[in-house]
Amino acid sequence: MKLECTGFRFSGVHAGIKPAKKLDLGLIVSDRPTACAAVFTQNRVRAAPVRWSQALLRKAGKARAIVVNSGNANACTGREGARDTRQMAVATADALGPKADHSQILVASTGVIGVPLPMEAVERGIARAASTLASGGFSRFARAILTTDRRAKIAARSIRVGGQDVTLLGCTKGAGMIAPDMATTLSFVVTDARVPLGVLRSALVDGVADTYNAITVDGDTSTNDMISVMANGAAKNRVMAKRDQMNFTDALGALLDELARKLMRDGEGVHHVVDVIVEGARSASHARKVARTIANSPLVKTAVAGRDPNWGRILCAAGNAGVPLVADRLELWIGDCQVVSRGVGVGGSSVEARAQRAMKAREYAIRLALHQGDASSHCLCCDLSHEYVSINADYRS
Amino acid sequence: MKLECTGFRFSGVHAGIKPAKKLDLGLIVSDRPTACAAVFTQNRVRAAPVRWSQALLRKAGKARAIVVNSGNANACTGREGARDTRQMAVATADALGPKADHSQILVASTGVIGVPLPMEAVERGIARAASTLASGGFSRFARAILTTDRRAKIAARSIRVGGQDVTLLGCTKGAGMIAPDMATTLSFVVTDARVPLGVLRSALVDGVADTYNAITVDGDTSTNDMISVMANGAAKNRVMAKRDQMNFTDALGALLDELARKLMRDGEGVHHVVDVIVEGARSASHARKVARTIANSPLVKTAVAGRDPNWGRILCAAGNAGVPLVADRLELWIGDCQVVSRGVGVGGSSVEARAQRAMKAREYAIRLALHQGDASSHCLCCDLSHEYVSINADYRS
Repeated sequence: MKLECTGFRFSGVHAGIKPAKKLDLGLIVSDRPTACAAVFTQNRVRAAPVRWSQALLRKAGKARAIVVNSGNANACTGREGARDTRQMAVATADALGPKADHSQILVASTGVIGVPLPMEAVERGIARAASTLASGGFSRFARAILTTDRRAKIAARSIRVGGQDVTLLGCTKGAGMIAPDMATTLSFVVTDARVPLGVLRSALVDGVADTYNAITVDGDTSTNDMISVMANGAAKNRVMAKRDQMNFTDALGALLDELARKLMRDGEGVHHVVDVIVEGARSASHARKVARTIANSPLVKTAVAGRDPNWGRILCAAGNAGVPLVADRLELWIGDCQVVSRGVGVGGSSVEARAQRAMKAREYAIRLALHQGDASSHCLCCDLSHEYVSINADYRS
Repeated sequence: MKLECTGFRFSGVHAGIKPAKKLDLGLIVSDRPTACAAVFTQNRVRAAPVRWSQALLRKAGKARAIVVNSGNANACTGREGARDTRQMAVATADALGPKADHSQILVASTGVIGVPLPMEAVERGIARAASTLASGGFSRFARAILTTDRRAKIAARSIRVGGQDVTLLGCTKGAGMIAPDMATTLSFVVTDARVPLGVLRSALVDGVADTYNAITVDGDTSTNDMISVMANGAAKNRVMAKRDQMNFTDALGALLDELARKLMRDGEGVHHVVDVIVEGARSASHARKVARTIANSPLVKTAVAGRDPNWGRILCAAGNAGVPLVADRLELWIGDCQVVSRGVGVGGSSVEARAQRAMKAREYAIRLALHQGDASSHCLCCDLSHEYVSINADYRS
């Protein structure tokens, strides 16, 4: 599938924020203002670009372009940081020509916290990025937003809505992903579908709930997180019927799921991505809490790293979720292997050996049945490995 | 100071639960029934001995003895586990003579989850422990309750109340202590003071709040945690006046603080113990939430391990506590070195160098001022190191 989307152009350049000629500044530009929805970090300490983009979308729900830099988060940088973010929008509008309005330019930043942006380099980079925009530039853009990621993470979907084929194109970045809740997550999606702003917003909120929000703790987000979707209507589809809206929502959800999983797999020090599934809860919120508490337990994560079917740690973490459990009803599977029945270990060395084998897989599921109701939820988790400690203890990020 | 307490005898033996002749079963016996208060794990999955001891104290508030085994948690062991716990109490009462009542014997267990206790070995061990009880046996008891701890952790206090000198004697154990919230914490305190049960209970709750509960996340406890204090009145002090009660409460708090700090310092893979202090909050509960969120952040803990004054991670963690913050008012100190003023980094390479120096200390403080009110709180945290991952990924615990 071609990584293009009618009416959008992209670029990625080396502005000089990062050393060593790495791409560190990217642009997404629509040839007309687009409907735009976004979700932002829940952190109380929000970086200047987050505050800018949030205010902009609250007012208008429209955007013409997104400018992103990596290598510097422009967070905890005070008034100077706010001025710099505004200047990034102004410089981008200037570079796009007389019709562009800086109040329609979203800004995102990721990288080190507390260091002022090198604005001369950033402005030169914006000019260069604007002059190299191309409809085939999405891969370069996807590379320009990375920090400690090992590779660009891109996903695309094509669906038919309102009598036309439309494209959804997205990319994402993470970092030090064993703690996804605190690494900066950026994700940008564009589509040429014509989507009413209300539908776009609810499709994004829906799509994020089971994907990006299922790899993170409630409210545990970085200073800079942002996920946006721009819809420019260039596909000229008819007004979306209810079914079209559902198809679009499904496609966006599937795209975000693919991006979120790629982001987990590319986590530094990640050898295993584990889907923690909790079933039979009294409510979805209970199921989600239990799944997240297991997925965030350092003792579970180190057991995953050590491929140790230490189910006691999993039950112990479940018990810490603040949700009423009936210990005697719990059942637990690691992969296809049932290790706990009615709250007690399923004995036998063959069970242990089978569970150990299941944990060698790069991706597998841990499934806990509470037997209290019908609700379920899931959360993606990964291993806590030596590399994670090295990356986060030995280098400044 | 002699590790004795009038009217109490102690022992520790190798029963055969652990391999290699390590002490794995301990007894504390009072020569008369004592007032006894205890706090237990908040985990919804509670081990059999926790349920036993909780029920016993709920009924009576009196205990004659405590029997503890290490090497096996007797958790997630179903009905058989409950029978085994009861049998430990019965065997202890039998060994203590005809006047002993099994409904006054507290039981605690720590070690691997989900494996039945080797009851023959346990019962032989109880008989041996009862026959070797000695007033000077506290150190052996303190060693018998350890799991992956490197050394016994003991503290003692002597104070004057109601016209008499009284002694408080305590010991504790932890394990894999970077995640104190999930390792089993056991702590046993005895005193010869005569203390009304109500005073004893509130002194324990008070004492735990700022010590054991400040090294753990609310409700994030293991299946087996228990902290108990027995007061046998052998010192024959007069009825406690208000001031005596306060003195006793202070002494118990100081004893628990010493034990909690020793427990952190002895954590496997711990090189630094950091006191995270949060000041100027609107309420103590806000301050506590912020301190705990910082203390539990894996990114902060790895920065502590790497001696990296990466204050952005600390502010970011603070922002995730779910407490309203005014980012522009935040001030942060690492040791004596102010690194953030009004939400912005205090520039200069000398600041960085000084902060780095402060982080080389084995113990230091990180202090965050919110400038929103007068409340403060603290939480002890430690580094997340390679050893932690090795211990928890490579070995079954």
